[in-house]
Amino acid sequence: MSEADEARHSEKMRRKQAAQAKIMANKTQEKGLLIVHTGKGKGKTSAALGMVVRAIGHGMKVGVVQFVKGAMATGEKAVFDAFPDHVAFKPMGEGFTWDTQDRARDIAHARAAWDEVKRMIADPSCAMVLADELNIVLRYDYLPVDEVLAAVNARPPMKHVIITGRNAPDALVAAADLVTDMVMVKHPFRSGVKAQKGIEF
Amino acid sequence: MSEADEARHSEKMRRKQAAQAKIMANKTQEKGLLIVHTGKGKGKTSAALGMVVRAIGHGMKVGVVQFVKGAMATGEKAVFDAFPDHVAFKPMGEGFTWDTQDRARDIAHARAAWDEVKRMIADPSCAMVLADELNIVLRYDYLPVDEVLAAVNARPPMKHVIITGRNAPDALVAAADLVTDMVMVKHPFRSGVKAQKGIEF
Repeated sequence: MSEADEARHSEKMRRKQAAQAKIMANKTQEKGLLIVHTGKGKGKTSAALGMVVRAIGHGMKVGVVQFVKGAMATGEKAVFDAFPDHVAFKPMGEGFTWDTQDRARDIAHARAAWDEVKRMIADPSCAMVLADELNIVLRYDYLPVDEVLAAVNARPPMKHVIITGRNAPDALVAAADLVTDMVMVKHPFRSGVKAQKGIEF
Repeated sequence: MSEADEARHSEKMRRKQAAQAKIMANKTQEKGLLIVHTGKGKGKTSAALGMVVRAIGHGMKVGVVQFVKGAMATGEKAVFDAFPDHVAFKPMGEGFTWDTQDRARDIAHARAAWDEVKRMIADPSCAMVLADELNIVLRYDYLPVDEVLAAVNARPPMKHVIITGRNAPDALVAAADLVTDMVMVKHPFRSGVKAQKGIEF
């Protein structure tokens, strides 16, 4: 790189640093966030699990309810079970809802899982609550969106609530502080690769 | 819900189950994936950390090199340090590159971190390698994209490699098996909320 290029690079980095400093100076607030991971791409649950890991590492207590996963042994379960004082991990699903073919039973399961989430939201010792795949349950009207919104909007001010799953309802997106839409650019399922440990479960 | 609605729902679920079964029947292959998390939205690193957790939970060995994070105590570091037999965790950055204002030093750091990634890719005991924020380093031409591509394309067949960061180079996206573009719908920084433990670090 020439001297002129080096100088241009330095100047660019100086401007970037100044811009970043200005942005960060205005970020002073701390609050419990309502976080939504939606979209057809992979990474919605994985990113929530990553946040759970970060929270555990800071000594925070976390509650995790999985609305779809249940019977299957997952990698996340094995790790979180090693931190019983920091994570209450509840896989309360029975697979995807089209696998059960029994709407009344699906609704009963969704209700039981949601009751657990509400309990965690109310628990003052719990700093973060993950309702994994709750959007799928909302999509099929197994729980009323209004009831979910009322509970998360009434959460304690410093409590983080993370909700994942495709097709997040508009009202939930509107209420949220942090929303990421995971867009699928490429997925290995499309080229015949099956679900693999460490990646999908 | 009326009986007719129940019947329609059941029929819809039956069709969905049949469609899923057909898709899954064609997914028989296992392979080491090249995974890229890019985009401006939050969740790129978090989703990679979630995959690391899943892999650890299945007893796989994982190598993690962070190209940007270094000095700061992160939640992920505290958790991964609890699994010394399963994770080699190397935070090798010094903050964002505009903070150092020293291009030669940034390049030296990027090179040292990349050498560590190459070592992990070559290590047969390591099932998954995460090169966190490598795209940022590529964006500033601190490492040649061709060299990175050559190394990941020559990886052992069952090894997963995850690369994160904004502005993934086109050649990397083209070579990858799984690419998610994290699209920012809403970010709390925009409304004055600062980086919080459990969420950003």
